[in-house]
Amino acid sequence: MTASELDPATGGEISTARRGRPGYDQETVLRRAIDLFNRQGYDATSMGDLARELGLSKSAIYHHVPSKEHLLASGLDEALGALSSTVTTIAATSDKPAEERLRAAIRSSVEILVAHLAAVTLLLRARGNSEVEQAALERRRAIDDALAELVRDAVREGSLRTDIEPELISRLLFGMVNSSTEWFHTGGSVDAGALAHAITGIAFDGLSQRPLATDQQDAQASKSTTTSSETGNV
Amino acid sequence: MTASELDPATGGEISTARRGRPGYDQETVLRRAIDLFNRQGYDATSMGDLARELGLSKSAIYHHVPSKEHLLASGLDEALGALSSTVTTIAATSDKPAEERLRAAIRSSVEILVAHLAAVTLLLRARGNSEVEQAALERRRAIDDALAELVRDAVREGSLRTDIEPELISRLLFGMVNSSTEWFHTGGSVDAGALAHAITGIAFDGLSQRPLATDQQDAQASKSTTTSSETGNV
Repeated sequence: MTASELDPATGGEISTARRGRPGYDQETVLRRAIDLFNRQGYDATSMGDLARELGLSKSAIYHHVPSKEHLLASGLDEALGALSSTVTTIAATSDKPAEERLRAAIRSSVEILVAHLAAVTLLLRARGNSEVEQAALERRRAIDDALAELVRDAVREGSLRTDIEPELISRLLFGMVNSSTEWFHTGGSVDAGALAHAITGIAFDGLSQRPLATDQQDAQASKSTTTSSETGNV
Repeated sequence: MTASELDPATGGEISTARRGRPGYDQETVLRRAIDLFNRQGYDATSMGDLARELGLSKSAIYHHVPSKEHLLASGLDEALGALSSTVTTIAATSDKPAEERLRAAIRSSVEILVAHLAAVTLLLRARGNSEVEQAALERRRAIDDALAELVRDAVREGSLRTDIEPELISRLLFGMVNSSTEWFHTGGSVDAGALAHAITGIAFDGLSQRPLATDQQDAQASKSTTTSSETGNV
């Protein structure tokens, strides 16, 4: 039990004599706040709503967190911190082929999405309706720019098809990753590993200029029903 | 000028004598409402906000549309109607290979997304926070189920890789399509055709079990220009 725990019934700090009653630490308040923001929208959620959700008085919440914006900023920071560190980590392996770094970036993004599902969802739904959201969107753009640069590097390197603009590839690729926030919680047996495998499998078997090695290759090639744009050689 | 036009300055109906002043018809009110819902969130938007946005009095808006829910329902109907009719149209071509129908479904979905960008965005952001949203989510699930069935058919048919669950393929494929709502308005030169080409190109070169052609195979296939599925007459 930490000093920051509050009694949900009274909103007061819980003394050691009353430790049998449930309390909320700051981390729990943040979790519940992010979930509520995601459920009913940040702009439509008041501190009163959050207090009701937690069974606390409104003044008890303000004793615990300075403002709704503070909770939003904490949630956005959680997602942005994790995503930024991935980009930094991958940039540190610039001796590796860009396609390999891009695959690593997708895998890490999926792992972060799964580990920080609620915070990443909050980030992806931020529209820039406040200074806090605008600052977050600016940091998000910097991450997106770094990922798009990785795609451009992979195209320059000759690993990826050239008939689709790298910027568009990047948007679709990370759009596919990000869209998972909308269904992952209902995704049953799909875990981060299976999701990353599926995304890189779908994306790279399509993006890579290397032919798939199969026994049917000769037979298929003789029929050759694909267009030059479909095969990606321009 | 129609009978439903309102004077934005006074909120009154515009007489023919004052036809030089700009007015709003119901369609314009709906467009502006959907944009405002997308910008600041439906739950956080009041009819007062919408009246302010249009420079109308609040009572003038109520004279024009019965309720905020009515505008939401109209926006959701626009997106769902278009998407439902695509699924119906494609179901009517069940004599064609499932992969071909799936490609057609993606192209149609992209066209609808571009033609009804604001309404589709509104639909994708609906969380089920009201009966209107819940009804829309139920209709959306039926469409998603039909698209997932199309993927399952294509897997059964032997056209698509079998190492990723059809359900997951469907979620990622249409997640990639849907994620375009988040950036398409800033997408510069990307139009519906280029977007559909990029999505089917990335997705199917990965999903298809047919090997990608190498440069040599391309040379052999230099005469063939389109696949039957690319010409896709559905």
